Amino acid sequence: MTATLNRAIASFPNVFDPGALSALPDHLQETIRRRNEVLGPGYMLMYREPVEFVSGRGAHLYDHKGNDFLDVYNNVPCVGHAHPRVVEAVSRQLAAVNTNTRYVQEALVDYAERLLATLPSELSKLSLACSGSEANDLAMRVAKFHTGGEGIIVTRNAYHGITSEVSRFSPSLGKGSPLGPAVRLIDPPDPRLAVPGSTLAEHMRAQVRGAIEDLERHGYRLAALISDCAYSSDGIFTDPVDYMQGVVDEVHAAGGVYIADEVQSGFARLGDSMWGFTRHGVVPDIVTMGKPMGNGVPVSGVVFRPEVSEEFGRNVRYFNTFAGSSIPVAAAAAVLDVLEEENVQQRVLENGALLRAGIEELTRESPYVAEVRGRGLYVGVEIVKDRETLAPDRGRAEDVISDMRDRRVLISASGPVANVLKIRPPLAFSSADVTRFLDTFAEVAKERL
Amino acid sequence: MTATLNRAIASFPNVFDPGALSALPDHLQETIRRRNEVLGPGYMLMYREPVEFVSGRGAHLYDHKGNDFLDVYNNVPCVGHAHPRVVEAVSRQLAAVNTNTRYVQEALVDYAERLLATLPSELSKLSLACSGSEANDLAMRVAKFHTGGEGIIVTRNAYHGITSEVSRFSPSLGKGSPLGPAVRLIDPPDPRLAVPGSTLAEHMRAQVRGAIEDLERHGYRLAALISDCAYSSDGIFTDPVDYMQGVVDEVHAAGGVYIADEVQSGFARLGDSMWGFTRHGVVPDIVTMGKPMGNGVPVSGVVFRPEVSEEFGRNVRYFNTFAGSSIPVAAAAAVLDVLEEENVQQRVLENGALLRAGIEELTRESPYVAEVRGRGLYVGVEIVKDRETLAPDRGRAEDVISDMRDRRVLISASGPVANVLKIRPPLAFSSADVTRFLDTFAEVAKERL
Repeated sequence: MTATLNRAIASFPNVFDPGALSALPDHLQETIRRRNEVLGPGYMLMYREPVEFVSGRGAHLYDHKGNDFLDVYNNVPCVGHAHPRVVEAVSRQLAAVNTNTRYVQEALVDYAERLLATLPSELSKLSLACSGSEANDLAMRVAKFHTGGEGIIVTRNAYHGITSEVSRFSPSLGKGSPLGPAVRLIDPPDPRLAVPGSTLAEHMRAQVRGAIEDLERHGYRLAALISDCAYSSDGIFTDPVDYMQGVVDEVHAAGGVYIADEVQSGFARLGDSMWGFTRHGVVPDIVTMGKPMGNGVPVSGVVFRPEVSEEFGRNVRYFNTFAGSSIPVAAAAAVLDVLEEENVQQRVLENGALLRAGIEELTRESPYVAEVRGRGLYVGVEIVKDRETLAPDRGRAEDVISDMRDRRVLISASGPVANVLKIRPPLAFSSADVTRFLDTFAEVAKERL
Repeated sequence: MTATLNRAIASFPNVFDPGALSALPDHLQETIRRRNEVLGPGYMLMYREPVEFVSGRGAHLYDHKGNDFLDVYNNVPCVGHAHPRVVEAVSRQLAAVNTNTRYVQEALVDYAERLLATLPSELSKLSLACSGSEANDLAMRVAKFHTGGEGIIVTRNAYHGITSEVSRFSPSLGKGSPLGPAVRLIDPPDPRLAVPGSTLAEHMRAQVRGAIEDLERHGYRLAALISDCAYSSDGIFTDPVDYMQGVVDEVHAAGGVYIADEVQSGFARLGDSMWGFTRHGVVPDIVTMGKPMGNGVPVSGVVFRPEVSEEFGRNVRYFNTFAGSSIPVAAAAAVLDVLEEENVQQRVLENGALLRAGIEELTRESPYVAEVRGRGLYVGVEIVKDRETLAPDRGRAEDVISDMRDRRVLISASGPVANVLKIRPPLAFSSADVTRFLDTFAEVAKERL
């Protein structure tokens, strides 16, 4: 990376190096130059050669020359780019009316009932917001109000969002974004991190207990443990699933609540369940959701056990203008329609199994692949310098990503040092898409892995 | 109000009393009962008899019986409910593709250039977010980072949003939402509050100086003064406009920045300018915008002087998944199209003058109207017990609002005790709409004012 790269960018995987601008095609150069002139702090582009698309369908994206790229990265267009059902529902609502939640909207009530029916009955109150960040911000506000505590436990490289509050418990944002004084970090559920002789469940529980003790020693009571049910930014750890009850017991014993962040893992992403936490056999106190919820129309949500949110609701005004208004609700309802009608969860399970098996097959002999992890259509491939030391190899991961991009297949990276390939297509990913991905991956793996 | 009303609701104007549910029409009762079952904390409905609409056009909303309501309250559908230009642009984009800002999008760059061209040249960097709350949250985060201070000055009943951070400097949320320790309150620019012998400009400047001194006495350096350019929740104070330079000078002298919150006053709302701050003859350090920006599609923005945001951008990662993606940008660009093509600002100026003159005429003799304030299509009518004591009369204001609603004209209230009628139609408000409003208001005023 060149000297023009700054601290914020340096901490982020698979990012375009602005110093390499002059090597790009003319049109792209010109647009990026104009972009750099007008956009504010923090805007980054992905890939050594950035991409621009004019249309999409299913898991495919098309550039202005009509080139067909396979999208194996975007989780927002979950039921597929420009899904006709969503396009139609939102277009119809746009042409009718958009009113906010201070007016009666039967469609909002219908949606809330349908969404809650996918969750355990204990989770019975829905609040809507605009972004995953806003959802996690509200969840933590309610958790603090309910518990009277301030302490927060997250995994070591967790990401939960970008409001002032949420950035303080999102360590993956890097050193430029300081953690709050009452935030404590624990290991992600990586069995290799358990101390010899202890199980992962024992290790996780001990970590949580240690964090609570340290918080209390500093005068902080626990408010919440919040975790992404797929540990996306920690490097994707979906299995095993036998440790969560012990973690939740420790959290409850300290008076805290457990917030399941389903922004990444929710809406059937992991195939064997609609929600990531279900796999762990626990019922959270609060669940947050976002990205795929409206297939691209901004909408997010927080679901509460009523006893957790009741006092907050009695005392605190919360009105989010756009959230829950007719347009986002129309989009979110159409997503539920498609999930049901296309039996998406089953497709994710099947194609996810094909995808993972294929990747495992192609990397089994590689000295540079430590593990293939994941469930459903969420796969992480850990790239290392060698299988003995397991030293992460960010450079090799970026080479793989870049070679895949050059072959028009889009993936990216995750993990504290961005050495875990993040393979996370729209849920519209078909078996033909799996084949195309694996064929391309085989070519790249042959050279790089 | 009945005993069922809680503390959060009690602090909010013109809200439906859940205890009155059984008096409503059957269908509405049933939907509201279901709604109360499934929605989380903080949801409230407006009007003694809540409203539900199935379509809208211009400043008109239609219920399922086809009744035509005049919308004189909603600022989100700024160019009109379901404006065909916006519907068409967003529908087209939905059917094409939606990608985020980590992919190149020429439309995003085009939009940023167009939007920035409406602002003074010093304000040259745009960041997009999803809601006004997220915009103000980011603005304050940048202000704190840039200044190294924590102190915040807001007006006494200001509202800036509902993230954890922003709620701490939004006193209008009431006692259930505690202010941050480094937040100081000053009077809104109400000339009647100036101490005898001093001008409003002197009064405002002295207030700001006092707040800064008090912050410093507590060990806090000033980060920012943030103010809504129409002082919406303080009771709508648009004039005079001669005090802001002094205020900004004090803020800068203390090392702070001035954030103009244009979520309410921006996008030609005040008629004689695209932005509220322009009327005050100052150039802010940061400008935030939201509600009308996408005519209902969630989108908001923060515009910076580059010297204010540069270091933050170098050090802090900020990526907002939905913000700046193709769909919100399509909506926001269509809003700019309509503002230009329909010459909206001029229409606002003309119809706003008619509206205000009509209201002044109808209330001139009323013993219960202290002042008619506002600019463009934003009018506040202060309802008092009598013109001598100026004691606020919330009950009378609510009677007016309710009588108007019964005649199918929608307004609401503002101000610390909700005694200021808030008359703020979509900018699509026509001269015929002005006439209809005034005819209805004349009927209600005859009885109530």
